[in-house]
Amino acid sequence: NNYFKIAVLPGDGIGPEIISESIKILDVIAEVFQYTFKFDYGLIGAEAIFKTGNPLPDETLKICKESSAVLFGAIGDPVFDNNPEAKVRPEQGLLKLRKELGLFANIRPLKTYPSLIDKSPLKREIIEGADIQIFRELVSGIYFGEKFTDPEGNYAYDVCKYSREDIIPIAHMAFQEAQKRKKKLTLIDKANVLDTSRLWRKICQEIAPQYPDVQLDYMFVDNAAMQLILNPKQFDVILTENMFGDIISDEASVIGGSIGLLPSASVGEKNALFEPIHGSYPQAKGKGIANPVASILSVAMMLDHLSLHPAADKLRQSVEHAIENKYVTVDLNTKQYYSTSEVGSFIADYI
Amino acid sequence: NNYFKIAVLPGDGIGPEIISESIKILDVIAEVFQYTFKFDYGLIGAEAIFKTGNPLPDETLKICKESSAVLFGAIGDPVFDNNPEAKVRPEQGLLKLRKELGLFANIRPLKTYPSLIDKSPLKREIIEGADIQIFRELVSGIYFGEKFTDPEGNYAYDVCKYSREDIIPIAHMAFQEAQKRKKKLTLIDKANVLDTSRLWRKICQEIAPQYPDVQLDYMFVDNAAMQLILNPKQFDVILTENMFGDIISDEASVIGGSIGLLPSASVGEKNALFEPIHGSYPQAKGKGIANPVASILSVAMMLDHLSLHPAADKLRQSVEHAIENKYVTVDLNTKQYYSTSEVGSFIADYI
Ligand SMILES: CC(C)[C@H](C(=O)O)[C@@H](O)C(=O)O
Ligand SMILES: CC(C)[C@H](C(=O)O)[C@@H](O)C(=O)O
Repeated sequence: NNYFKIAVLPGDGIGPEIISESIKILDVIAEVFQYTFKFDYGLIGAEAIFKTGNPLPDETLKICKESSAVLFGAIGDPVFDNNPEAKVRPEQGLLKLRKELGLFANIRPLKTYPSLIDKSPLKREIIEGADIQIFRELVSGIYFGEKFTDPEGNYAYDVCKYSREDIIPIAHMAFQEAQKRKKKLTLIDKANVLDTSRLWRKICQEIAPQYPDVQLDYMFVDNAAMQLILNPKQFDVILTENMFGDIISDEASVIGGSIGLLPSASVGEKNALFEPIHGSYPQAKGKGIANPVASILSVAMMLDHLSLHPAADKLRQSVEHAIENKYVTVDLNTKQYYSTSEVGSFIADYI
Repeated sequence: NNYFKIAVLPGDGIGPEIISESIKILDVIAEVFQYTFKFDYGLIGAEAIFKTGNPLPDETLKICKESSAVLFGAIGDPVFDNNPEAKVRPEQGLLKLRKELGLFANIRPLKTYPSLIDKSPLKREIIEGADIQIFRELVSGIYFGEKFTDPEGNYAYDVCKYSREDIIPIAHMAFQEAQKRKKKLTLIDKANVLDTSRLWRKICQEIAPQYPDVQLDYMFVDNAAMQLILNPKQFDVILTENMFGDIISDEASVIGGSIGLLPSASVGEKNALFEPIHGSYPQAKGKGIANPVASILSVAMMLDHLSLHPAADKLRQSVEHAIENKYVTVDLNTKQYYSTSEVGSFIADYI
């Protein structure tokens, strides 16, 4: 099968700019590897609210459901962030999309690039050789539990709920990934306080005997937030619930030197979505300074997902080539830098 | 008033060892400054469960309520952590104590010690001069909301609830502290997802006009977890809810070079409790390697709270003297180091 329908959702802020570099790359890959990609664009986020009043229009959801993969840019707009009363918010679009597509696992690989190691706020000896894969549960927990604010605005609550079925599939995925790697799995939770965390521990303990070659460890999230910085090399595969995963994986991005480099895949049984881990970075919008690499590496994860491994490998090599040759945006080198589109073209040309 | 009743709760793991250094210090301070401290010891945590079946015996609570201040060691035991079915757990003792004493604000000052700056995993230029004060809400949120696990163990939930009254007092405290410092307050939340976070934003926005000289910023917790490492100097006073505060403040401890140095105060309207931010560190128990400085600096915060400022200042100077003269435990210098009690005695002698 060489024909793929790709849903493309540029979203807000720098989303459209980085996505257009990813499309540039996919066009070249189509040519070189003789694949056909059909791109279906959809509205999402603040952009969609401004145009349709709905952060996830039905049309967008339909496009995504019919696609082989979703390529997602970024979401979020300060207009909504600073207005606690806003009824409709851009993020609802992404959350609903994750839920509707059943994207239960968000996977974030973290590695250091030798030529960028000195960009990290962490010392070289702390991060050199660190290689972590984070599995964050993405469609349950406090993100999707019941929420309530009383009409007078005197109190509010958010419910964090997990059931056995929410945990089992992602736990198996993480154990299987650990088997392919250094065979170490760390469950990050707060089992000394939360009932939901104790359920996570219990289920992981139940599953563990099926993976006798994997060492299962537990770490409290407060300690983990510290250990990730003190000694990131102690981690191999990390498994955690939605909210802790949100915090821990953004924190862990400092290990790689720049959040502008980090891709992620969100996968479910039928669908998959690929997005950079950075946000919509509204201050940079339209300036041509956004780093397109995180989105381009998300394309590489997408190609792997579509079993187009040679193209994925070639793309990753091309990105490394660009970075080693200092063909990077201003966030990575303030002395000599290139625009978003120059970096995209350099990578495309190399392919 | 020169007479103070101090409730002393050594707790678990290294708790008793570090607390006995703090008592050594308080004995010297009593002599030098002509104060009288009456120490009332109480059981708490795993220790209390083993001896009484209750992680917070009534007697302990009574001692604390009648005290001018509570000096707390550490809590937690791996026997309970790895057993998701345990009905009684050590941490319940500390949580109940916080709630019963109404200790709504946990205050954690973070500074770098010039002579220890190179101990941090972060680069010198990132942390040099960083000076942050964290205010963590301590008696509400997901820690104290309704919790439930169904008898078959198929699902569980934890409710994060906040009401106006939970937020207002600590928000004022944080604004007032910002006024005394660099006049910058950052509220850390997840207002793009959580109703409770939007309540925090709304109330802080309401209060802000009473502190026109303070600049109020908002930051999402995922971004904050990253920014604390990328550029900790951008922060002055941080305000956040219970769970985020737990994570963020342990993470931020890496800025100071060692978690073994960091004290905290938990204050309410009537009572106050002082504890190191580190945990019970069971692997180190009884080995004489635990760093007593975090507990000793918690004593300094306690002395300030009791308005014994000259003693508090003298104590802080003495700690700095010990650190500058490399009179430290093995966590801070693996080549030349002293035992827990040697470090305590050195500081006591200097006073
Ligand atoms: C935009 C926001 C809702 C989202 C999240 O919190 O999941 C983002 O931070 C992420 O991690 O993908
Ligand atoms: C021991 C535990 C319950 C506690 C907490 O999570 O509050 C600790 O981590 C702390 O930060 O004081």
